[in-house]
Amino acid sequence: MGVRRNFIVLWTVALTLVVCDVSNNKIEDDDKLITKKRTLSECNLPTKLKTEIASYASTVEKIINAAVNGSFKGVTYQELSLFVDTFGNRIAGSQNLENAIDYMINKSIANGLDNVHGEEVQVPHWVRGFESATLVEPRNASISILGLGNSVGTPPEGILAEVLVVKSFDDLQSKAEQAKGKIVVYNEDFVSYGSTVIYRGKGATEASKVGAVASLIRSITPFSLNTPHTGMQTYGQNVTKIPTACITLEDAHFLQRLQDEGRTIKILLKMEAHTLPDKTSRNVVAEIEGTEHPEKVVIVSGHIDSWDVGNGAMDDGGGFFISWAALALLKSLGLKAKRTVRAIFWTAEEFGYVGAYQYATRHANETDNFIFMMESDSGTFDPVGLQYSAGTTGGCIIQEVMKLLAPINATRTRQSPSVGSDIEIWTSEGVPGGSLDTENDKYFWYHHSNADTLEVENPQSLDKNTALWASVAYVLADLSIDFPRETTDG
Amino acid sequence: MGVRRNFIVLWTVALTLVVCDVSNNKIEDDDKLITKKRTLSECNLPTKLKTEIASYASTVEKIINAAVNGSFKGVTYQELSLFVDTFGNRIAGSQNLENAIDYMINKSIANGLDNVHGEEVQVPHWVRGFESATLVEPRNASISILGLGNSVGTPPEGILAEVLVVKSFDDLQSKAEQAKGKIVVYNEDFVSYGSTVIYRGKGATEASKVGAVASLIRSITPFSLNTPHTGMQTYGQNVTKIPTACITLEDAHFLQRLQDEGRTIKILLKMEAHTLPDKTSRNVVAEIEGTEHPEKVVIVSGHIDSWDVGNGAMDDGGGFFISWAALALLKSLGLKAKRTVRAIFWTAEEFGYVGAYQYATRHANETDNFIFMMESDSGTFDPVGLQYSAGTTGGCIIQEVMKLLAPINATRTRQSPSVGSDIEIWTSEGVPGGSLDTENDKYFWYHHSNADTLEVENPQSLDKNTALWASVAYVLADLSIDFPRETTDG
Repeated sequence: MGVRRNFIVLWTVALTLVVCDVSNNKIEDDDKLITKKRTLSECNLPTKLKTEIASYASTVEKIINAAVNGSFKGVTYQELSLFVDTFGNRIAGSQNLENAIDYMINKSIANGLDNVHGEEVQVPHWVRGFESATLVEPRNASISILGLGNSVGTPPEGILAEVLVVKSFDDLQSKAEQAKGKIVVYNEDFVSYGSTVIYRGKGATEASKVGAVASLIRSITPFSLNTPHTGMQTYGQNVTKIPTACITLEDAHFLQRLQDEGRTIKILLKMEAHTLPDKTSRNVVAEIEGTEHPEKVVIVSGHIDSWDVGNGAMDDGGGFFISWAALALLKSLGLKAKRTVRAIFWTAEEFGYVGAYQYATRHANETDNFIFMMESDSGTFDPVGLQYSAGTTGGCIIQEVMKLLAPINATRTRQSPSVGSDIEIWTSEGVPGGSLDTENDKYFWYHHSNADTLEVENPQSLDKNTALWASVAYVLADLSIDFPRETTDG
Repeated sequence: MGVRRNFIVLWTVALTLVVCDVSNNKIEDDDKLITKKRTLSECNLPTKLKTEIASYASTVEKIINAAVNGSFKGVTYQELSLFVDTFGNRIAGSQNLENAIDYMINKSIANGLDNVHGEEVQVPHWVRGFESATLVEPRNASISILGLGNSVGTPPEGILAEVLVVKSFDDLQSKAEQAKGKIVVYNEDFVSYGSTVIYRGKGATEASKVGAVASLIRSITPFSLNTPHTGMQTYGQNVTKIPTACITLEDAHFLQRLQDEGRTIKILLKMEAHTLPDKTSRNVVAEIEGTEHPEKVVIVSGHIDSWDVGNGAMDDGGGFFISWAALALLKSLGLKAKRTVRAIFWTAEEFGYVGAYQYATRHANETDNFIFMMESDSGTFDPVGLQYSAGTTGGCIIQEVMKLLAPINATRTRQSPSVGSDIEIWTSEGVPGGSLDTENDKYFWYHHSNADTLEVENPQSLDKNTALWASVAYVLADLSIDFPRETTDG
């Protein structure tokens, strides 16, 4: 087995490989998840192994008690709160992000964690600038927008053009003749994030191909309070780069109605968006070194960068903070596993897993030692369990380990084709991994919007997530056997 | 009995009488509503009257069928949609509002309604202008705001001042010494709209009294996606008028945390808000004249003005549109009651029931003929029944009438101390009245914000509301007896 991917790729190449969207595997619909509720008869783990896993009950209880009722109660929320209040949002290329990275490095050192350091990463530096959209026909109205990542800007005087509203790429093709010189508005239905986000990723490219001068997408969300949701988009090769932004669900419906009523629609779009030369950022790494096999590693992770709206408390503040908190908690309890538990706070995830790809390149020869990789990037709501990417035996082990989380009712296990965002670079190549499974049905209400604030987070949920994260990482890092690397059977 | 109030008041005086808030009686908590589920034994209506009311079953069924399945199916939504798409929001004093009024007059004439006309009203003309708030210490951040109605503006260069966050008026008093020269931020908890909105109504006045240079309130809402909610405020007499705006729930919590952490907070507030001379607006009146007692009137109503954000599809587009639709539906079915059914679309409700007060003054001598007054101004979600202000016999009649609405499951009756907003001028003086009761638990998510759009409205709910509204108005206008005007027993 092992990792077959050749990691010698530059992030610029990697970015190009991310054809349409960098985050479309974050949360899939439940029906797309392969739920495998194995019964004991289906799992044939050796009794010895099951007994061994069960023997961690008191340790896990200790972790849970510390996080939920003890010395660590409220710490994750409190620290996350201080962090987002101090730094706000943290887009790749910004000084804010680098300050936040310095802060997390210093904090981890202060916690007494091992081998704390930043690893340099070259990241894109896209700047939004001022932006506005104004409906000028059939009547005057302000249209809320957020430019999409990587978008080019408009000329200073803006682009004033007629609007063509389409429901889908097929609809655009059937109206290709009408699109020339227009602003194409995608009023695509929200089906699921994974299936709908292609309109964000490729909308500008497809509109440009048929001669549009700009494109606007309906924000990728099932619910809106006039809330635009930004996100990454990439221009296809050999197409004219046209400015592109998101509008709200409400305005997409509004423009659709105007078109259906046969009215001529004109919008004035102004965007200062532009891309500056790459900047140097860092992945943050901190560890609790293993006592017996320090070279073997269980990784817990999340990304430290965010979009430049809201303050990234949810995406991915809570996510990466539980990885920090898991290590800080284990450290405070004096729990050192046989293998190393490593926390990584990825940089520039939002621009195409940039930090993760460069980490993969730099650490290509260590991949066989990546025993189990975890990422939380789908919200830190109340936990229900763990989604995982592993083979049959691995799944059975996960199932046994998650039984230990019964005190916080987070025992559910689900095999998923997609765990995490950054770590999929590895899990797609056979490295076992897992992601936090929470009550995240409202995740996309907040995602990539100004509503991504601390309000989404909850002290009790964060405590439970920290407990879960620390417990799973510790047990998998401490087991007598390496977590099995099998072909996934999902 | 009769109406004791002397209606000879100018709206300017009336506005002053509205001490703190003009809409705080819109929706009260359930526990404040006096629910009187009378059993048959408690109600002693004459059998003849009960039989008479029951005899309207086939007429009500006809109304319901037309609205829900027949010729009027979808019409209310479709017409509301066309209306809000065409005019957008309609603040008092704006040309938009007058254009919308012309449109509704012309539409009502085209429907063949009787005595369609506008009645002139002098209304305030407050203009928002550009506005912004920027956190400049401890870090730079944009704070979403909406100036509050009637607010004065800042100097062009803005007001840069330290922030004092308080939890309540009592808290402000206890910190009065610290407030001088500062921007007071009210981070009041949302208890209910009725009890919490006093911070919007009086916040600036109370802050000014202790020497603050501006005030910001946490938006009056239980839920937010970074959503500011504007609304009316009035300056107390003999206080310095200071600029005042709302901030989001999220930012109120954020500023509170910064203060709790001991950080110095500074905000730069810029507002161009100003008040122009009064303008002439109109209440819109349309009728289906009574066949036997045309001078006696059942009134259905809502307000046609809105705030200058979102497009007022909910507040009160849906509300006044069902009054238009109720008459248009009765007309299309050829249903003329013994008494007149009158629709009134009030103007400038948001600035203190301005249209309603002037209507009361002008029509003071007709009040005894106002048999029953209805208003819908709390959302047109799925209907559950009618809230009413009436005496015991009246309540029993309402209960019998609402039984006719069983086909659309909207039979609930609740005596309420507050029915509607505009009509409370009359109901508080003993005129019986009612307001639409709907599944409006999310009403304040959208209220007075950019999220008040057509998205809140639903064709099926509007059809049912139109049916309910037309049915109740028709039956009460057609009964053999005048609806009894008793002292309310609530």
